[in-house]
Amino acid sequence: MTLDPLPDTDLTRHRRLRAQGSLDRADLNAILDAGFVCHLGVLVEGRPLVVPTVYGRDERYLYLHGSVASRSLGGGTPVCVTVTHVDGLVLARSVFEHGVNYRSAMIHGEARKVTDPEEKLEGLRRLTEHATPGQWSYARRPNRKELAATTLLALSLEEASVKIRTGPPEDGDGPDAELGRWAGVLPLTSVWGAPVADPALAAETPVPEHIARREGTRYA
Amino acid sequence: MTLDPLPDTDLTRHRRLRAQGSLDRADLNAILDAGFVCHLGVLVEGRPLVVPTVYGRDERYLYLHGSVASRSLGGGTPVCVTVTHVDGLVLARSVFEHGVNYRSAMIHGEARKVTDPEEKLEGLRRLTEHATPGQWSYARRPNRKELAATTLLALSLEEASVKIRTGPPEDGDGPDAELGRWAGVLPLTSVWGAPVADPALAAETPVPEHIARREGTRYA
Repeated sequence: MTLDPLPDTDLTRHRRLRAQGSLDRADLNAILDAGFVCHLGVLVEGRPLVVPTVYGRDERYLYLHGSVASRSLGGGTPVCVTVTHVDGLVLARSVFEHGVNYRSAMIHGEARKVTDPEEKLEGLRRLTEHATPGQWSYARRPNRKELAATTLLALSLEEASVKIRTGPPEDGDGPDAELGRWAGVLPLTSVWGAPVADPALAAETPVPEHIARREGTRYA
Repeated sequence: MTLDPLPDTDLTRHRRLRAQGSLDRADLNAILDAGFVCHLGVLVEGRPLVVPTVYGRDERYLYLHGSVASRSLGGGTPVCVTVTHVDGLVLARSVFEHGVNYRSAMIHGEARKVTDPEEKLEGLRRLTEHATPGQWSYARRPNRKELAATTLLALSLEEASVKIRTGPPEDGDGPDAELGRWAGVLPLTSVWGAPVADPALAAETPVPEHIARREGTRYA
């Protein structure tokens, strides 16, 4: 499948560290698919508010659990959603060249409150399956009352940008290399642990396969 | 040490899920100390922009590497900085009760560009030591030119709020418990890996103790 490149607009253009920017929509999708918590930026009375929230996606939209920010989100409110995975510390010879290996996606647009019950249910399915594949078929799905009590936002994935940094520090061929100090990357890895049963659960309740199989696997 | 409680203001008041809010400044400090990447929200031409960046702190200020956002940060520009650690998925009996175990801190204020060279050096020391304790003494420190080329922001820690969720799902005593499905928490843990030497490094260069000792230790 060939994907359209990410747009080069005033909002998405990389002003700094251009080498780290990507215009590949597959990179955007990979970063979004690797995580399930984003940081949603909205304006509240003229001030920025940055709230963590869960998300899912389809090919066109990011779906966000929006209760926290919902009081600030009417029609046409500009938002910025950022998803960041930290992959390691870049430890250079000089403090100035220190940095972070990371993958980050930023999406700009106007978040829309999903009101159509069918679209809302489908959005919640995406969101649930995004965080825990297999869970939509396993857990009890939202009833009409719960659906009405849930605020779901949709944000077009059209205007997005990606930044990725990988690899060693960049002062290996400069004068600081003469210092003879160690330089490199200290990697950071996130791993799913062993499922912890709710103490209220009957002892014999088996952990379903779609949850059990994640133990020990890498996240993000 | 007794810390002042976090302030109860229009910005910090928890409007939702009040039980998850904390007014304990020690919780704020613990969340900040557990991580080194935050999400900085600023206004750019009336739109929110959320950028990941590294930080450190002292008792009164958060210090942020601010190059990405610097073109938008003059005097008195409101910002919101959020630090989030994701601890696990809360898998309930019903989709509606699903959630995330997390620790999140949000700081509101006006970011100030640090211009005094001495304060800037001290801020960079905090930032460097925050991400990699011991590194300020090991790496070459910034010279005057590098210091001038670095944008450091300071943000008062005064107006901040904290949210923490821990523990099992909350539908263990409701009608959905009768469904007999597994419910609990799938924990997520981040761990520092083995240091990866810069390929440009001479083979015999030893990994310093302050970096080597982090391997296998937990992050956040």
